[in-house]
Amino acid sequence: MASTPSAVPDPSPELLSRAAAVRRAAMALGQCSDGQRQQALLAMAQSLERSAEAIVAANTADLEAAASDQLAPALVARLKLDGAKLAGAIEGVRQLAELPDPVGRRQLHTELDAGLVLERVTVPLGVVGVIFEARPDALIQIASLAIRSGNGALLKGGREASRSCAAIFEALQEGLAESEVDRQALALLTTRQESLGMLRLDGLVDLIIPRGSNELVRFIQDNTRIPVLGHADGVCHLFVDRSVNQEQALRIAIDSKTQYPAACNAIETLLVHQEVASQFLPAVISAFQAEAVELRGCPRACALGVARAASDDDWGREFSDRILAVKVVESLEEALEHIARHGSRHTDAICTTDPETAGRFLSAVDSAGVYLNCSTRFADGFRYGFGAEVGISTQTLPPRGPVGLEGLVTYRYRLRGEGHIAADYASGLRRFSHRSLPL
Amino acid sequence: MASTPSAVPDPSPELLSRAAAVRRAAMALGQCSDGQRQQALLAMAQSLERSAEAIVAANTADLEAAASDQLAPALVARLKLDGAKLAGAIEGVRQLAELPDPVGRRQLHTELDAGLVLERVTVPLGVVGVIFEARPDALIQIASLAIRSGNGALLKGGREASRSCAAIFEALQEGLAESEVDRQALALLTTRQESLGMLRLDGLVDLIIPRGSNELVRFIQDNTRIPVLGHADGVCHLFVDRSVNQEQALRIAIDSKTQYPAACNAIETLLVHQEVASQFLPAVISAFQAEAVELRGCPRACALGVARAASDDDWGREFSDRILAVKVVESLEEALEHIARHGSRHTDAICTTDPETAGRFLSAVDSAGVYLNCSTRFADGFRYGFGAEVGISTQTLPPRGPVGLEGLVTYRYRLRGEGHIAADYASGLRRFSHRSLPL
Repeated sequence: MASTPSAVPDPSPELLSRAAAVRRAAMALGQCSDGQRQQALLAMAQSLERSAEAIVAANTADLEAAASDQLAPALVARLKLDGAKLAGAIEGVRQLAELPDPVGRRQLHTELDAGLVLERVTVPLGVVGVIFEARPDALIQIASLAIRSGNGALLKGGREASRSCAAIFEALQEGLAESEVDRQALALLTTRQESLGMLRLDGLVDLIIPRGSNELVRFIQDNTRIPVLGHADGVCHLFVDRSVNQEQALRIAIDSKTQYPAACNAIETLLVHQEVASQFLPAVISAFQAEAVELRGCPRACALGVARAASDDDWGREFSDRILAVKVVESLEEALEHIARHGSRHTDAICTTDPETAGRFLSAVDSAGVYLNCSTRFADGFRYGFGAEVGISTQTLPPRGPVGLEGLVTYRYRLRGEGHIAADYASGLRRFSHRSLPL
Repeated sequence: MASTPSAVPDPSPELLSRAAAVRRAAMALGQCSDGQRQQALLAMAQSLERSAEAIVAANTADLEAAASDQLAPALVARLKLDGAKLAGAIEGVRQLAELPDPVGRRQLHTELDAGLVLERVTVPLGVVGVIFEARPDALIQIASLAIRSGNGALLKGGREASRSCAAIFEALQEGLAESEVDRQALALLTTRQESLGMLRLDGLVDLIIPRGSNELVRFIQDNTRIPVLGHADGVCHLFVDRSVNQEQALRIAIDSKTQYPAACNAIETLLVHQEVASQFLPAVISAFQAEAVELRGCPRACALGVARAASDDDWGREFSDRILAVKVVESLEEALEHIARHGSRHTDAICTTDPETAGRFLSAVDSAGVYLNCSTRFADGFRYGFGAEVGISTQTLPPRGPVGLEGLVTYRYRLRGEGHIAADYASGLRRFSHRSLPL
């Protein structure tokens, strides 16, 4: 709704025709068997292995260009794809082939009347559009997720990874050429014009998955009618209640912040009940100092020793860094209000030994993940046991939270009859049985 | 994305504060038990019964105003709410109270490690915004669907039904006042400015459900970032294959078109395989003539007796009337292409006795409903056995097709630990078990 026509151009005729080709190939892919899709993944993995040298060489060229362009070190780290990292990504493709087929699962099976049987079966979405920044291994992961779930994909990598992406894409296509999946099911976009044009491919692209900065995600959400799977913000909270095992709470706070500070599921704000603040905060201060985490406190937290005062902007801010806002709250209710106001509905946790307080927190906090006495860092598709992660969604509607392969399928109702017509039920001649059948 | 700022104004401060009040009440409602929500529905039903006379009188006043405004007869028919229709709507509220609770269902239950247990539980969406035209009984239905599923609702009825809606809304609130559900969980909007402003209540409204004309739905889809449950078009097809029980196919064609021609699940186009066309079409022509349905044919259909030629616009057009486009196709593949090109992915059916053709159609047509040898008119939440229908969605992502109460809930992940931290798994000190537990 916030689009400006100049920001999002109409897709070019060339992009439209490429997207239409992907869609046609995806329709055929959607009819492939589980075994055919598994075999395609194994062929992709083999082809990547054969091309490993060329891929690493292309990546070296990208890294050299990045060095001469003076790219930020964090970006360079994400860009780097050496032999070991590539081998890991290829292993990921093989693991994906082994995951249970997400397609063709019967979710509902009802006899509406004798001879009139309804079923709801999972089917691929169609075509996914993926826009990612820097990390070239994301191309391998996303392409294999798409093929495993029977979807075509339009893939747009970052400009800085263009050589790596081209080499990987060539290997993926060569792999597909040795399988029964049409290689046209995957297309690599290379220009910014193309990735912008993709946002307007309603009807040809069914889901857009942005993998990159919050700004990228927000821009995409604001400039497309196509559903977007992702999250702009990960503003996670940890509330330490008055009834608490303080030693355990401190371990959880440190893990939630420092195990990977740039992750979306790291905490940005620590809320501490006033009744334990004077005892708990000194321990927090020294433990986080040892971890080189800067604390920014509310006035009461500062009075208890937090060195730097938090600004108004620090509440609800995703630092993505070794910075943690700390607030002393009067009650559980104040903590709930703070989270409702400043959180991003990603993952929020409580440390408490009081079952009633735990229950209230778990039912009142409206986030994709609500945790009791454990680290927010568990919010992840692999840790949840999904085997693969498409992304993490902070929207209200499903799919929500960490999304596995199920995020790349939808369902369809199939109704099989023997000449059944609705008029017979309207007239009362026949009646619905609505009998559940085994799945 | 197609919005013009003038079409969708910012919500007024008054609307914002009303929506915030609904959201607060909805948060409390979301914590209510199944029994409390059931009881609230029964209290609403009783209150509506007590106010029946006032509601019918208000409706009579709306009908008189409609007559003096010379409203279209179809609109007047939808506007009318006499004692019998009201009693039916009240009975619907009581039935809804009896439906199984959609909230608090455990969908996933996994032990990630000893003492670290993940579950996924259904929870209310929060607040739904509903915009409907004319039919005042829709207000009763939607309000009770919302309360049953633990959601607050902003409700905007048509201007022509304003007196009826006000009377119904008063009765609903009086009913809620006798229950443990805060009456503020429901709010009635009355002006066009308010319903436009609602489209911008991102963060306060979680789902918009438009109930009205295709134009209304399309306008809303194009002018909000909030997810929309609904469908702009219902362009359904019936394909009569060459291997077919022609008598049965004719019965199905007639039912699919005439059982309720204005419904979204009525067919708009009949596709006939060329090998049966010369035999089947004459029967179609006389049968539809008897039903006062106008046929518009492709050249080959016209050559076989269809009196009027279809224009290019007639393919893919939702007539919502006693008009049916008829096309002779060379093959199953041509039928599939026609449906892919002109359909709206609502419901499409095939009549065939060939299992292979049936299988190909059921897997290749990418619509919310794909039917074999039965009428498209079965595409309906009640007929599917869902007990209640929130709407029918033609989007690709779930919820798709007829949507019952499950369309008004989402889910949340709850993770309960005993001090578990992610670092222990990263270091290899602990390993995930990912053991499925009983639901």
